[in-house]
Amino acid sequence: MTNSNRLTVVDMGINTHQEPVIYMREDCHVCRAEGFTASSRVEVRAGEMAVIATLNIVDNPVLPQGRIGLSKVALLRLGVKAGDAVTIVHAPVLTSLSVLRKKIFGHGLSQAEFSDVVADISEHRYSDIEIASFLTVCAGNRLNLDEIISLTRAMVACGQRLQWPGRDRIFDKHCIGGLPGNRTTPLVVAIASVAGLVMPKTSSRAITSPAGTADTMETLTRVDLSLAEIQKVVADTGACLVWGGAVNLSPADDLMIRIERALDLDGEGQLIASVLSKKIAAGSTHAIIDIPVGPTAKVRDRPQADRLSSLFTEVGAALGIHIRCLVTDGSQPVGEGIGPVQEARDFLAVLRGEARAPLDLRDRALFLTAHLLDLADNSSLEACHEKAREILDSGQAWEQFQRICRAQGGLRTLPEARFQHTEKAACEAIVIDIDNRQLSRLAKLAGAPFNPAAGLRLHARIGDVVTRDTPLFTLYSESNGERDYALDYYQNHASIFTLELR
Amino acid sequence: MTNSNRLTVVDMGINTHQEPVIYMREDCHVCRAEGFTASSRVEVRAGEMAVIATLNIVDNPVLPQGRIGLSKVALLRLGVKAGDAVTIVHAPVLTSLSVLRKKIFGHGLSQAEFSDVVADISEHRYSDIEIASFLTVCAGNRLNLDEIISLTRAMVACGQRLQWPGRDRIFDKHCIGGLPGNRTTPLVVAIASVAGLVMPKTSSRAITSPAGTADTMETLTRVDLSLAEIQKVVADTGACLVWGGAVNLSPADDLMIRIERALDLDGEGQLIASVLSKKIAAGSTHAIIDIPVGPTAKVRDRPQADRLSSLFTEVGAALGIHIRCLVTDGSQPVGEGIGPVQEARDFLAVLRGEARAPLDLRDRALFLTAHLLDLADNSSLEACHEKAREILDSGQAWEQFQRICRAQGGLRTLPEARFQHTEKAACEAIVIDIDNRQLSRLAKLAGAPFNPAAGLRLHARIGDVVTRDTPLFTLYSESNGERDYALDYYQNHASIFTLELR
Repeated sequence: MTNSNRLTVVDMGINTHQEPVIYMREDCHVCRAEGFTASSRVEVRAGEMAVIATLNIVDNPVLPQGRIGLSKVALLRLGVKAGDAVTIVHAPVLTSLSVLRKKIFGHGLSQAEFSDVVADISEHRYSDIEIASFLTVCAGNRLNLDEIISLTRAMVACGQRLQWPGRDRIFDKHCIGGLPGNRTTPLVVAIASVAGLVMPKTSSRAITSPAGTADTMETLTRVDLSLAEIQKVVADTGACLVWGGAVNLSPADDLMIRIERALDLDGEGQLIASVLSKKIAAGSTHAIIDIPVGPTAKVRDRPQADRLSSLFTEVGAALGIHIRCLVTDGSQPVGEGIGPVQEARDFLAVLRGEARAPLDLRDRALFLTAHLLDLADNSSLEACHEKAREILDSGQAWEQFQRICRAQGGLRTLPEARFQHTEKAACEAIVIDIDNRQLSRLAKLAGAPFNPAAGLRLHARIGDVVTRDTPLFTLYSESNGERDYALDYYQNHASIFTLELR
Repeated sequence: MTNSNRLTVVDMGINTHQEPVIYMREDCHVCRAEGFTASSRVEVRAGEMAVIATLNIVDNPVLPQGRIGLSKVALLRLGVKAGDAVTIVHAPVLTSLSVLRKKIFGHGLSQAEFSDVVADISEHRYSDIEIASFLTVCAGNRLNLDEIISLTRAMVACGQRLQWPGRDRIFDKHCIGGLPGNRTTPLVVAIASVAGLVMPKTSSRAITSPAGTADTMETLTRVDLSLAEIQKVVADTGACLVWGGAVNLSPADDLMIRIERALDLDGEGQLIASVLSKKIAAGSTHAIIDIPVGPTAKVRDRPQADRLSSLFTEVGAALGIHIRCLVTDGSQPVGEGIGPVQEARDFLAVLRGEARAPLDLRDRALFLTAHLLDLADNSSLEACHEKAREILDSGQAWEQFQRICRAQGGLRTLPEARFQHTEKAACEAIVIDIDNRQLSRLAKLAGAPFNPAAGLRLHARIGDVVTRDTPLFTLYSESNGERDYALDYYQNHASIFTLELR
């Protein structure tokens, strides 16, 4: 059986994202013998390695006889290259899929059952539709507290876990997202680490937003550090600001989050497990969580925010991490810049104490840092706030930020975008609302985060009175095409600013 | 914008099954301008036609600049060929996805909401993961009676509906499946149409089984008739036995059923809507539904069968179709043959009154026909059974079957498989159990239904006493490889027969 199922690998040059896909000829003897048809799930083996993949059948001229095409992720996970031999069999029946069905039929799942499902997902044994099914049945508040705890623990168990020998307490912060420009992390890390808190901060890149903290930091320094490099930076400075993806903290989450976003599902159980599994895997013992609330933010109202806060705290407690949630204003963007470089400009201005520094970004960073210091010391919040302000205003935070960047590989100069265009108000009016989601979309159409200097700067805020020719925003892009495309979206499809005529 | 998003089509020769996939270069100006990444959902337009597709990014050498690759189903649905021009934009946000989220969050859906979702699915606007999410949230008895009715109505509304002018009553039968060899349909249709019932029977091909009724009938005559041809056959003979796929009765069901089977979800709401939507679209007014119950059948126990029967009847009543459900023995296969040709041999033997005709297949067909005649006439079941038996034994059913085949294009001679192998018992024992699922798998590994003559004949039944060298089954295949592969599965992986030593 093994010999007759042997085929030679062809690199198809196709990026199918996270789902491995293989390509076989319609008349391939293996397809016929095994009864494979388009979309069959198959197992491809090379030596000790095996991946489960989805089959696409191709016309005979696409591949020679005896060949099998592999997509990028299939090649990568199997560790093979063109010309290598592989064997193909039916995909094994995953026992964890019966756990999934159990949940679909309304039964609760145990720790062991969540562990089975999450381990199979992290090993790429689930197809995208199977992950979609699992996420769907966990959404809509269908996970109780115990299940969220089990899911979180399962997600931690299948990834790498950072150790910080000799450090009792490791501090972290997180924003659940959805608010453009809310780039407080570099400020909080710089200030809090000057105050003595150890903050080895791992951040993510953008998935659907115009910038993640890792994208923004990458405009200023290296962020794809190895575990050993991270440990050296933290030993030297007490902090870091790196990309978490390089250290594989929660591989199941990385796979699930893409499907979750594609389905636009924001299941609270999944959100909590996603955030806390990464904090715990990063070795954190104390963390603050920023929960912006607003009509176009991720969390729409206060009761939802309160429920989320209480779940975060309880799940954290069960897993040995101290969590304090802070419900913040999510009605409009924070700062002026949206996109990696534009956001970096804003927090650099705050660090340097420049006059043009956005006050809302500064205030929010001080508020969050104060709570983090208070979580550490249980002293008065007012005293903590005063301490944070002093560290920022004295220039110590800016010194510390530069120290961190130098340790990570040096501080870079921010690039300028090739094209810019300023959009102005057409008449006198008051800005009564700003749509966060459409504004993010606009920045992405301009090229962010793919082109780091692309994005926009916002010149008007809710409550501002604008007159004819008052600038509303400046758009930055690296090509004429992207600029035109973004402006077309703004002019013909979007209602980003709600203006009330005076 | 339109012009800059124009690309020239390349036929990639890739069958991605039902989900349209497009292939674009990493550095394609459209990808960059639009911010597309691997797995983005995009809309491809050509003239008045548009399809929503999933994006795979390819290495630059795979495609020349200015080109876009399309998978088979993308080419087909868009009606384009290599060299044609298409434009690419972001996929529109589907409003029905917010309906899906509403259901995920535990709210019931209205008729209009089901109609929106099902219309989008039938127009191929949902990705496979979105269909998976919808099916998951409808499974596990999460649809109430009203919702099943709404879903059924929505599925009928988006397909073609057959009309039978001048005919008051149209009769149908259906088996929910899962029982190999249960090929009663040709017998029921032949007998009942002799008795005066109009039976324009549309059947499906196998999806996961070794044969569908359409595959089996295709070994004997043409089944891919157009609507006009079907109407002529029915006018001439009062019946037909054709493939329903050619007349597009429930396009949404055709798309959903594949994902449902891939997830091994057997949601009862979805099952009822799937079956009844096709009956109603076919114009049926009366139908019997065969529900086999057994440990390795689709329905495992009597309470589940009863619940399903009552839902079928109630949903049917709401939609104006008279349904009678018949719970039957699903503990082992019916007849001896499994696979298109082998099953055809069995029902032909019953029609011709041959001595070797499997009695269980004959009895079951007479039982089902009697219930169908009784549903039509409300006379006594016993009288109906007697009438069915007479029609069969007198040769009238065989005459009628040949008449139907001639009207559909002529009766063919069944082909013989190239290879056969008979597996024998190793010692004296009683057969105490037969696994339907593994037996189906064995027939598929031998090549069914891809090779119509492939499959198997079962020589032992539950309760039979076998001795050393008593034949258990004969395997039929068109290649040595398939035979060996199936036998390897039988010998090393399967426990198809449970034998108790004597």
